[in-house]
Amino acid sequence: MSTSATEQISGQTHIWSVTEHLEDILAAVRPLEPIELQLLDAQGCVLVDDITVPVSLPPFDNSSMDGYAVRTADVAGASEEFPAALEVIGDVAAGSAGGLTVGPGQAARIMTGAPLPPGAEAVVPVEWTDGGLGEGPVGTMTPHSAAPEGASGEVSVYRPAAARAHVRARGSDVQAGERALAAGTVLGPPQIALLAAIGRARVRVRPRPRVVVLSTGSELAQPGEELTEGRIYDSNSFALTAAARDAGALAYRVGAVADDAETLRATIEDQLIRADLLVTTGGVSVGAYDVVKEALSQVGDEDEAGSGIEFRKLAMQPGKPQGFGSIGPDHTPLLALPGNPVSSYVSFELFARPAIRALMGLPDVHRETVRAVLRAEKALSSPAGKRQFLRGSYAPGEGTVTPVGGAGSHLIAALAQADALIVIPEDTTEVEPDTELDVVLLG
Amino acid sequence: MSTSATEQISGQTHIWSVTEHLEDILAAVRPLEPIELQLLDAQGCVLVDDITVPVSLPPFDNSSMDGYAVRTADVAGASEEFPAALEVIGDVAAGSAGGLTVGPGQAARIMTGAPLPPGAEAVVPVEWTDGGLGEGPVGTMTPHSAAPEGASGEVSVYRPAAARAHVRARGSDVQAGERALAAGTVLGPPQIALLAAIGRARVRVRPRPRVVVLSTGSELAQPGEELTEGRIYDSNSFALTAAARDAGALAYRVGAVADDAETLRATIEDQLIRADLLVTTGGVSVGAYDVVKEALSQVGDEDEAGSGIEFRKLAMQPGKPQGFGSIGPDHTPLLALPGNPVSSYVSFELFARPAIRALMGLPDVHRETVRAVLRAEKALSSPAGKRQFLRGSYAPGEGTVTPVGGAGSHLIAALAQADALIVIPEDTTEVEPDTELDVVLLG
Repeated sequence: MSTSATEQISGQTHIWSVTEHLEDILAAVRPLEPIELQLLDAQGCVLVDDITVPVSLPPFDNSSMDGYAVRTADVAGASEEFPAALEVIGDVAAGSAGGLTVGPGQAARIMTGAPLPPGAEAVVPVEWTDGGLGEGPVGTMTPHSAAPEGASGEVSVYRPAAARAHVRARGSDVQAGERALAAGTVLGPPQIALLAAIGRARVRVRPRPRVVVLSTGSELAQPGEELTEGRIYDSNSFALTAAARDAGALAYRVGAVADDAETLRATIEDQLIRADLLVTTGGVSVGAYDVVKEALSQVGDEDEAGSGIEFRKLAMQPGKPQGFGSIGPDHTPLLALPGNPVSSYVSFELFARPAIRALMGLPDVHRETVRAVLRAEKALSSPAGKRQFLRGSYAPGEGTVTPVGGAGSHLIAALAQADALIVIPEDTTEVEPDTELDVVLLG
Repeated sequence: MSTSATEQISGQTHIWSVTEHLEDILAAVRPLEPIELQLLDAQGCVLVDDITVPVSLPPFDNSSMDGYAVRTADVAGASEEFPAALEVIGDVAAGSAGGLTVGPGQAARIMTGAPLPPGAEAVVPVEWTDGGLGEGPVGTMTPHSAAPEGASGEVSVYRPAAARAHVRARGSDVQAGERALAAGTVLGPPQIALLAAIGRARVRVRPRPRVVVLSTGSELAQPGEELTEGRIYDSNSFALTAAARDAGALAYRVGAVADDAETLRATIEDQLIRADLLVTTGGVSVGAYDVVKEALSQVGDEDEAGSGIEFRKLAMQPGKPQGFGSIGPDHTPLLALPGNPVSSYVSFELFARPAIRALMGLPDVHRETVRAVLRAEKALSSPAGKRQFLRGSYAPGEGTVTPVGGAGSHLIAALAQADALIVIPEDTTEVEPDTELDVVLLG
């Protein structure tokens, strides 16, 4: 039921809870359609398909050491006193295509990762041999560049080797046909490593949402410009663009639009082409120049379900006035956040960030919330019936949180010192020091 | 003392601890020179100067509500039964440059953020008035677009207002001359908000380091290509490029270079122009084709302190062979990591990630390490004298960690399921289930 319908029935404004508003947003936001991306472009994105291993890893038996590939019988009982002397038939380098076969009494010099040649049953590390130099145990092989003909002659082996010693078996990492990664996996560096290792150059994921951020207000000046009378610098469009990127989005900052409904509507229509989500700040309250509300209350198509922007009052502080809905031919979701800097930032954290992460298809859309004990000199007061979000500094070691600055929604300096939001529930009007509270950890 | 000098004296190879190697790297890596960046380009970077507030915030007394600016004496004792009737002299919109003065018996309609006009002492919210309509309390103002002439006539005020009620005082957020942010602050969204709010369009920060990643090995095929005999897919260059970005760098993946010292040297020389840090994988061990060691052991200028790459053996598993030093005319730092996928990833986490964060000037260069209780069916064994890093799955709620996969440094599939590194100290050779251990949290 829409606000206006509710208002008509009850005769007074419905107040929505933070939870209801968030639920409505998340119910409306669908993950973006998958696209195929180059592996490194998919970093941080969510896999949409189960990925099956096409070829076993490793693809062939190979050496885990630099050493000599031998037949175990030939080195049985070998010791420093009575080494096994073997004929060296050549080199097996990593990436070589084979060709050598190790017969009785023979050895092939082999590098880490090189395929175990036919006939060989184990690898003895070079440190267990004389490296073919006849002068006792060595620590390293003679570089290929110093002896380009490769290894030949005879090698003394000083220790026996069990069958398969220092051999990585074909398929010992993963077998062809196994599931490498499940749909829904977020692709970090190790997952990208695995995809590359099984030969995937491209992968189907949900893309990062393109988020367009614009602030509204005729009072807003661009940082770096001169500040004329009655004006303040636009900070919301910068803060929320940064916060959108932080949430995983590709964010575009449009900047400040003056309080004129026609200009705002035109700007939003222009931006729709590159937006998976639009976020505006300001102009959503009860003033005579609240143009976001004015411009967007009319955009819905009455014949189309879910179309249009709904403006609500929420039982929260800061952030009481909020707008949410969809706009344009593709029903692009739009969040109209309040204009006070702290209100817009807190609203972004509570509503826009989860929406961005839902668009990405991420399994967990929420910031981490912990319980912490309030450190304060005196009791905090909170308005009845509203969920209050105070800025705080969280000390993880002690499990405590200390309020930073006051409750005023214009206090940007204190916000810049905070790393947490202290949550005071709707039914609480006073919180004594040492009370345990929910704390939302920021970044 | 260099390894070779040590070797000459002791007659055997010196083994370095993980801690020593990391300390040497961090002692050699200096934060990058600061540059001035646009505010949003500086996100995630470290401020190099204290930032002073040039103009108080807010810059002028302004309204925190949509309402009417009044003189307190005029509304003293006002109630719904006996409202105060005031003459409305016009609108003060946000961004307006003033012009109105509120005299006795007068009120100006005022919007949130608009400057308090001369003469006015407080703001009464529109909800405490009849909005000039003469029909009892209203919930909102008449939009400017519906009545472009602005407010006039008379307004009934139903409640008194204390002096300065709903007025945000000039400088109540920050005062001119105060320190807004301290040098060393990492710029997240709230800090960017504050910088914008005080009018800063650009800011001096340490830039993100440009990290060039290249893997070496003649066995390496590019994902997506056909896998011919004896070859495997290159995964290291993908994983470490992703991990470098994750650490905060701008990362460039060069891809796989064949095991040829001349080619490798030429490639590295080509890449130096865009590198603040070079990371290679493979070719650092004791094999005959370990070309990284071969190519880079010769690059140092003997007359120049700190020049050249030193190759070491470390008391760790995986990741025993490591190279580190600087290269080229600018002494660009270079980390030569081992080539096994798990070894290279673990080495990156332990050594390259802290180096990247040190280049950024970040105050904390390390991953979070926690204590966790080992969940395992049987005891884990670990080589004597080596710090072992096993892959694990950490359960924060329970404070437990469970090993994922075995110790083999080729086990990429298990790495992709892990979210932590389990640290088994050098002097421990067996760890019973339920033992408490250090765990490095990944991502």
